[in-house]
Amino acid sequence: LHAQENAQKVIAGDIRAAARLMRDLDDRMPGAIETLKLLYPHTGRAQILGITGSPGVGKSTLTDVLVGRLRAAGRKVGVVAVDPTSPFTGGAILGDRIRMQRHATDEGVFIRSLATRGQFGGLTASTRGVVAVMDAMGKDVILVETVGVGQDEVDIVSMADTTIIVTVPGLGDDIQALKAGILEAGDIFVVNKMDREDAQRTANQLQAMLAMEREGARAEGWAPPVLLTCARDGRGLDELLAAMDDHRTLLTADNNRLLLKRRKQRAFKELLDLIQNRTVTLLLERLGSHRDLEALAEEIASGQKDPYTVCDQIMAAAHLG
Amino acid sequence: LHAQENAQKVIAGDIRAAARLMRDLDDRMPGAIETLKLLYPHTGRAQILGITGSPGVGKSTLTDVLVGRLRAAGRKVGVVAVDPTSPFTGGAILGDRIRMQRHATDEGVFIRSLATRGQFGGLTASTRGVVAVMDAMGKDVILVETVGVGQDEVDIVSMADTTIIVTVPGLGDDIQALKAGILEAGDIFVVNKMDREDAQRTANQLQAMLAMEREGARAEGWAPPVLLTCARDGRGLDELLAAMDDHRTLLTADNNRLLLKRRKQRAFKELLDLIQNRTVTLLLERLGSHRDLEALAEEIASGQKDPYTVCDQIMAAAHLG
Repeated sequence: LHAQENAQKVIAGDIRAAARLMRDLDDRMPGAIETLKLLYPHTGRAQILGITGSPGVGKSTLTDVLVGRLRAAGRKVGVVAVDPTSPFTGGAILGDRIRMQRHATDEGVFIRSLATRGQFGGLTASTRGVVAVMDAMGKDVILVETVGVGQDEVDIVSMADTTIIVTVPGLGDDIQALKAGILEAGDIFVVNKMDREDAQRTANQLQAMLAMEREGARAEGWAPPVLLTCARDGRGLDELLAAMDDHRTLLTADNNRLLLKRRKQRAFKELLDLIQNRTVTLLLERLGSHRDLEALAEEIASGQKDPYTVCDQIMAAAHLG
Repeated sequence: LHAQENAQKVIAGDIRAAARLMRDLDDRMPGAIETLKLLYPHTGRAQILGITGSPGVGKSTLTDVLVGRLRAAGRKVGVVAVDPTSPFTGGAILGDRIRMQRHATDEGVFIRSLATRGQFGGLTASTRGVVAVMDAMGKDVILVETVGVGQDEVDIVSMADTTIIVTVPGLGDDIQALKAGILEAGDIFVVNKMDREDAQRTANQLQAMLAMEREGARAEGWAPPVLLTCARDGRGLDELLAAMDDHRTLLTADNNRLLLKRRKQRAFKELLDLIQNRTVTLLLERLGSHRDLEALAEEIASGQKDPYTVCDQIMAAAHLG
């Protein structure tokens, strides 16, 4: 009823209805999930791009420039800026405002910043919801920008059709970079700030690592390109956009064969996360309140009880297990 | 019985028994948790230090040098190197080997690398287990080293008594760094590679940001110092060790007042994670197999069903909710 009305508005591209739904999903308002369910049949059309890299490599500037280029090509764009660190500072809002200034008056761009909320579900679930809403709204391209290389980022990155990993000269020569392991997750690599000394050397090193690490790793027929860019003046952006198109062409060949494969993996993970979230919510409902947990945490901290025994007791009290 | 015997060996400092237990915990071997329960009453004595920062800032080298200094001062040291990115490359093992070479013959150092394992529980739970084992073994200091600034890192960092955040010159002047938000989590800040141009400027910027961001944020009476180091030649290490001691003194004042406060927060989070893990395991047992989930994921990927409806059906089938 109400859900149907809201869903129809979102599908028609109503920005206010979409923004309200995203907020309602975050706040776990009743009915929000019902609306989302109705949107799902209208999703799957958008191209989802992940952009990730360490802080300071210029991801936001690059995202900003990409938005400008995609808009100039007449494509409707959604941006999800994910900042998992903001439980501490709420920093996401700052980034949002700064970017909004440039694209604020452009109805074809929808920007949403996300930070971690609550104990459960978290960032990955929220990001999925926002992406689904933007997709149903009719965005052609959705850019998901994340900071860092933690597990959350790997999860979020795995939700993209095409993942762009951004680095800068001088970060590439440490053993840590070799270890970083996110190499496997990247479809396109970008060495931004190409003006800096050693940009070409960093690109060469990355290329060499990719050749080594991914030898035969993927039978998908894609050799991830390493591109040099300067987000501030736009150099290298044409090549990046071309690489994005090339990867899209690969994914959609043979009746979307590779695209569907990726999306199946994504759906499997989403399903597991949803089940996890739901069971825990159920358990906490059965338990009654958080307050008892805090008292138990105090006993654990002071060494009176161990957490495993306490967990056993809680499960028994909730008639689970 | 068997658990009791194992626990006694670990408490006596038996390295093989400890390593076996850590492996058994990772592999979810029956009995491993029973042993861990018996160890808990013997934990709480070790000083737990978190070391985090972006890839390439020299965390591993710094950890390595800190281990040397702490050993020289006669302290027993445990190192947990957490690399959340290795689902892709198994990179943790590489780092482990390289570090092991130097401290391999020193019985007073125990090094363990962790990568993400499995769908549930994951890195944070594994890290907690390893830290508890090292603590029960009688390690005086446990260094937990993590890559990056994602949610996992924030979780892991929140498990330390004292958190050291490492950066390098030239990463600090971007808006991303301001956004990074991990500022709130740091007790001590280190600008490593102090030879590089602009090291002092980076330190000053950090100091200014800290003054701004944390104005009145903590009533704990601690102004986080920003220190310059060069891990490769050991400069600044004396100051870092002194800051670590100062922070320890603060935490343990008034009968461990602040230390217990932090540990209570940690115990609360651990309890929630354990409950979450347990309920999901229970649900999956009731469901029977993963295979059905994969078939359902395929239906979601192809757009036939939405994940929320599928989740409803699964919960009903498992007689939950």
